[in-house]
Amino acid sequence: MTASNITAPTQFIEAAGTRYAFRRFGRSGLPLLCLQHFTGTLDNWDPAVTDRLAAGREVILFENAGVGRSGGRTPDTIAAMADHAGAFVDALGIQVCDVLGFSLGGMIAQQLVQDRPTIVRRMILVGTSPRGGEDVMHLEKPNLAKALSDPTLQGYEVLQRIFFTPSAASQAAGAAFIKRLGQRTADREPPSGPEIAQAQMAAFREWDQYAGERFADLKSIHQPTLVVNGVHDQMIAVRNSYWLSENLPNAMLLTYPDAGHGSLFQYPESFVRHAVAFLDSGSSSAAY
Amino acid sequence: MTASNITAPTQFIEAAGTRYAFRRFGRSGLPLLCLQHFTGTLDNWDPAVTDRLAAGREVILFENAGVGRSGGRTPDTIAAMADHAGAFVDALGIQVCDVLGFSLGGMIAQQLVQDRPTIVRRMILVGTSPRGGEDVMHLEKPNLAKALSDPTLQGYEVLQRIFFTPSAASQAAGAAFIKRLGQRTADREPPSGPEIAQAQMAAFREWDQYAGERFADLKSIHQPTLVVNGVHDQMIAVRNSYWLSENLPNAMLLTYPDAGHGSLFQYPESFVRHAVAFLDSGSSSAAY
Repeated sequence: MTASNITAPTQFIEAAGTRYAFRRFGRSGLPLLCLQHFTGTLDNWDPAVTDRLAAGREVILFENAGVGRSGGRTPDTIAAMADHAGAFVDALGIQVCDVLGFSLGGMIAQQLVQDRPTIVRRMILVGTSPRGGEDVMHLEKPNLAKALSDPTLQGYEVLQRIFFTPSAASQAAGAAFIKRLGQRTADREPPSGPEIAQAQMAAFREWDQYAGERFADLKSIHQPTLVVNGVHDQMIAVRNSYWLSENLPNAMLLTYPDAGHGSLFQYPESFVRHAVAFLDSGSSSAAY
Repeated sequence: MTASNITAPTQFIEAAGTRYAFRRFGRSGLPLLCLQHFTGTLDNWDPAVTDRLAAGREVILFENAGVGRSGGRTPDTIAAMADHAGAFVDALGIQVCDVLGFSLGGMIAQQLVQDRPTIVRRMILVGTSPRGGEDVMHLEKPNLAKALSDPTLQGYEVLQRIFFTPSAASQAAGAAFIKRLGQRTADREPPSGPEIAQAQMAAFREWDQYAGERFADLKSIHQPTLVVNGVHDQMIAVRNSYWLSENLPNAMLLTYPDAGHGSLFQYPESFVRHAVAFLDSGSSSAAY
């Protein structure tokens, strides 16, 4: 098996009428299912993260319905996205796996673990929010709107603005991240268009809603969880990570300095060191 | 040198008219100066933490003026306590050290690094608050007042209530902690009386006050810092740790699940693993 998202071929599997694109690479053993951010495709996974993770485990990158070369329509609820993730895992014949969910993917991970608790062993939630969070993906905020409408930013360049802070160190890390995303030159996914963005935005707005006691749904998630965020995340405010770690019964929280939404891509070595220590811990506690 | 707080002899050194009690043990190299919590003495340092730390570095436990067998009066400001800590470090001839400040000790560490920035290389702040924090050491809160006035709790037993959560797992960890504190049987410090408590409480209330922009004083602290807390800390609410990590320019935050004020004593192996990885990092960034 290849061990890099730069070279791993995109594969396809069909389940319940949908043909899903995915990549799997690394060592054999309990796989780590990776669930991607808003409009992100398989090509948006930073090889500095995925390839380091793959040094010690199997990494599976999943492309949800409607995104990239996956078939079907992009759902407009997290619940439907989690159904697709569950169907995909079943189709691969995987009984148990770890899950890394980033941003939108972190919400899908939370829904999946509630719907299908036996599938998930341990969970890493990066830059995400519980149901009923606040300041989640409001792209109309002036700073974000400015970057997103800047015609001088080509391709992934906008990510350097919205995933990183304005500091020189964070911007340099952002530039390096963009460069790494370009290392894969063949067999790439088509970038997401407005239809995908619109459906996923609808899913965020639905995820804002809650009924009954706020965050009470988190109390039933007993899987050890590592919550990670940058302290200056403008896309999904860090207080959503605080709520996750305060209300999940078994969660550690780690926040990074001078970092925004893309903290895992800003500090890939540190992030992977923590992720591996957490995933490899034999403890039933999230403390690692 | 012995490498345990169970057996290290209490030593004394005089500086600027005050005779300080302290213990030092472990390996030679850059020392880790440990600053203690409200009413805590040298005997309140958990050997499961200090001895593990001492496996790779020199650990110095400092008893501030007026506490235990240290001379002088207990100051009623953090600033004066930091002056004593600085005078003590100078008296030992230490030019640079790392600092671990727990609770009250974390405030003293923040003051020390601002007054004497060249002394401090890296800092670990556990269960503490920036100047201008909130919900800091209000012992009149019903849960705390009940535990503190319970006549059935002898000696350190009250710590099991106020440093840990009510869960079975946390209470078991608390009981183990209390037991470890009793392992040192000779050369113990006298417990703190009401005069010490009163002066230290006055210092907390002074530390609540701030002038000008809230938390702006933290912006000038560039030392890599690791902030640690239990998510259910009732003595110094966890949001004070959030403010530290959001406003210190170079700080990681780590929070523990199902843990209160004594998170470092509830998860000593995990805490020391993180502390050592952080302290041993050669990076100028707090990310480890």
